[in-house]
Amino acid sequence: MPLLVMKFGGTSVADLDRIANAAQKVKREVERGYDVIVIVSAMSGKTNELVGWVEQTSHLYDAREYDAVVASGENVTAGLMALRLQEMGVPARSWQGWQVPINTTSAHSSARFVSIPRDNIDAKFAEGFKVAVVAGFQGVSDEGRITTLGRGGSDTTAVAFAAAFGAARCDIYTDVDGVYTTDPRICGKARKLERIAFEEMLELASLGAKVLQTRSVELAMRYKVKLRVLSSFEETDESSGTLVCDEEDIMESKAVSGVAYSRDEAKITLVTVEDRPGIAAAIFGPLADAGVNVDMIVQNISEKNYEGHTMAVTDMTFSCPTNQVARAKKALEDARTAGVINYDDLVVDTEVAKVSVVGIGMRSQSGVAAKMFAALAAENVNIKVIATSEIKVSVLIDRKYMELAVQALHDAFQLDQA
Amino acid sequence: MPLLVMKFGGTSVADLDRIANAAQKVKREVERGYDVIVIVSAMSGKTNELVGWVEQTSHLYDAREYDAVVASGENVTAGLMALRLQEMGVPARSWQGWQVPINTTSAHSSARFVSIPRDNIDAKFAEGFKVAVVAGFQGVSDEGRITTLGRGGSDTTAVAFAAAFGAARCDIYTDVDGVYTTDPRICGKARKLERIAFEEMLELASLGAKVLQTRSVELAMRYKVKLRVLSSFEETDESSGTLVCDEEDIMESKAVSGVAYSRDEAKITLVTVEDRPGIAAAIFGPLADAGVNVDMIVQNISEKNYEGHTMAVTDMTFSCPTNQVARAKKALEDARTAGVINYDDLVVDTEVAKVSVVGIGMRSQSGVAAKMFAALAAENVNIKVIATSEIKVSVLIDRKYMELAVQALHDAFQLDQA
Repeated sequence: MPLLVMKFGGTSVADLDRIANAAQKVKREVERGYDVIVIVSAMSGKTNELVGWVEQTSHLYDAREYDAVVASGENVTAGLMALRLQEMGVPARSWQGWQVPINTTSAHSSARFVSIPRDNIDAKFAEGFKVAVVAGFQGVSDEGRITTLGRGGSDTTAVAFAAAFGAARCDIYTDVDGVYTTDPRICGKARKLERIAFEEMLELASLGAKVLQTRSVELAMRYKVKLRVLSSFEETDESSGTLVCDEEDIMESKAVSGVAYSRDEAKITLVTVEDRPGIAAAIFGPLADAGVNVDMIVQNISEKNYEGHTMAVTDMTFSCPTNQVARAKKALEDARTAGVINYDDLVVDTEVAKVSVVGIGMRSQSGVAAKMFAALAAENVNIKVIATSEIKVSVLIDRKYMELAVQALHDAFQLDQA
Repeated sequence: MPLLVMKFGGTSVADLDRIANAAQKVKREVERGYDVIVIVSAMSGKTNELVGWVEQTSHLYDAREYDAVVASGENVTAGLMALRLQEMGVPARSWQGWQVPINTTSAHSSARFVSIPRDNIDAKFAEGFKVAVVAGFQGVSDEGRITTLGRGGSDTTAVAFAAAFGAARCDIYTDVDGVYTTDPRICGKARKLERIAFEEMLELASLGAKVLQTRSVELAMRYKVKLRVLSSFEETDESSGTLVCDEEDIMESKAVSGVAYSRDEAKITLVTVEDRPGIAAAIFGPLADAGVNVDMIVQNISEKNYEGHTMAVTDMTFSCPTNQVARAKKALEDARTAGVINYDDLVVDTEVAKVSVVGIGMRSQSGVAAKMFAALAAENVNIKVIATSEIKVSVLIDRKYMELAVQALHDAFQLDQA
């Protein structure tokens, strides 16, 4: 029997009516001949309520107890979904993480999968059950304690089950109807993509287009799971939504598939740093230790006359999330005090945004960066920092030009046309 | 290390402040040198919310899914209580039913204990943990599915743990400060009892004084667990509340320990039933099959001239809960239609109440019934049905005299005096 994994997020199971609506979608797939594994999140709001209780009870809480409390939200949805399916005449049962068992590491609140043995669920399918409703986001450790995967972990649970059970597809039902060329709230011409490559999706996810959790895309890429993103709130069929798939499954691709942005960026420059071997490690080591997520890094070497000597010096610029600026400054100042690094000045600019164009087509097509810079220049948008990867070109610009830049790039790469 | 079981019901853990208050009581017992097993209910209102969702989702619901959903309420409290204790510096961890494991039968929603192995919890006490916080009301079946014990099951969980771990005492914290000679809302002279025998508590529990769940008292009696009922909302010490204990632990007892009542009674009389061997079975068999809880039964034999013949006939009277009258009538009428029984008339009186005096002292002291009847006669209360057991005399009376009767009996047996 072919098998499908279907995942419903918190807003898709927010109340009993929505659970019934989701169950209807599951039933349709059963009627199409699939055995189905349904992965459910907690009803929306429930996880936040439970997290709030934990945080109010204990400031530095025991992550094992946090997990035991918070995982209960998904268990409730799983039971209710199984009941709803039974009521519709679909043989279904619920599974909590420890019942499958979903074996994970003991890294509570950020556990990783160790194994998902198929035996128990397969035995129930063999008995005639058509649907296994599995509580997402959770697992069980070697010590027999409940673990959770961290926020968004239900996407990852879905992909892990699809890989473990060799599913024909892993359908992620959510409150948007697919992945777009850019954010439709910013650019009216944004177009839904029929297909997108895993690598592109990873870049978009990490750039703030939060349709899918990054880990779930990584896992899908590794195990070649066909992921589909589609809407819980619309009629859907086998061609709905956006398929996230292997590069090979995309026949022809444009140079650029999408334009992503992130408002939440800050630019920090260390002015006049001595240019010597090991200086980058001396700067970014303390930042990493302080938990600062450094994104783009740019270095310009020059020669300066420093106290009568000519020496090689550099300005070192990097970007990080706005809310990590204070931590970054402290780490760098401490490193200077300790004599690890030296610099003349530390300049922070929090009024910047990152805009990126992403596409696997860049691998074979040249001139993408040039075209991007030209499009921005035509709108008089000044570029502060540039960073490139194999399938992405990112720039830091003044935040006030962000929407303009996104629209200009969407036009320049003709993303409104299929 | 001596061990104590402490149980906190739903109102005692209704919110984070009350959980903190309960944790304070646990900490005090740890400071007195006890290892403690805490049994918790769901935060009050939570179980009803979950039950409501199940019932709205599925009319004839699968009890296995019901149990999986409803048991989650206790898991949340257990985690929060463990966190709160940790925050107070008390080494504690939470235990869900399957983690202990609390092995039960597969009778979902009314499961019974099979075994509670001590190994896992004992190992944690040996590691230095002082408190095991166990989710009440739940267990796990042979098939690895979550079971629940039915409403009020947390009391029973507490007693079962006290028995399994040889606890010095099982303290049931609730919203009343003990067991009273009668309901203080009806009789201002009601007095809190320092001790009460298991047998008496059982009669009081089944008569509607719902301080403890009946099954928990039965279990405590069988395993000679010292049960104590005391208030969550008052300062308590080692002599607070009421101790429910073995008859032998009560030095001297009055003939009567308490007066109980039940408003929820109806009296049904079958008029002119043929008096023949097997007639009682023919009547009460169909009632039992229909799930009617028959309580008191009275039969008066007389001779009647019936169609020219003198034959032995009887009036058969019994009582049952008011909300089962319709079911009882239908069962009896069906039995008459089927020719299993015959009667001239079926008379229902729903305006009755049951009043009982209870006391293990009755076993050795005579005249209790006579004294009871005299007290009621002095108030002109007419007795409709009488039933007696070894430690109880019950009467059915008009409901409008119920409060008067309770007060008169409380006075007659001088229950206000210790």
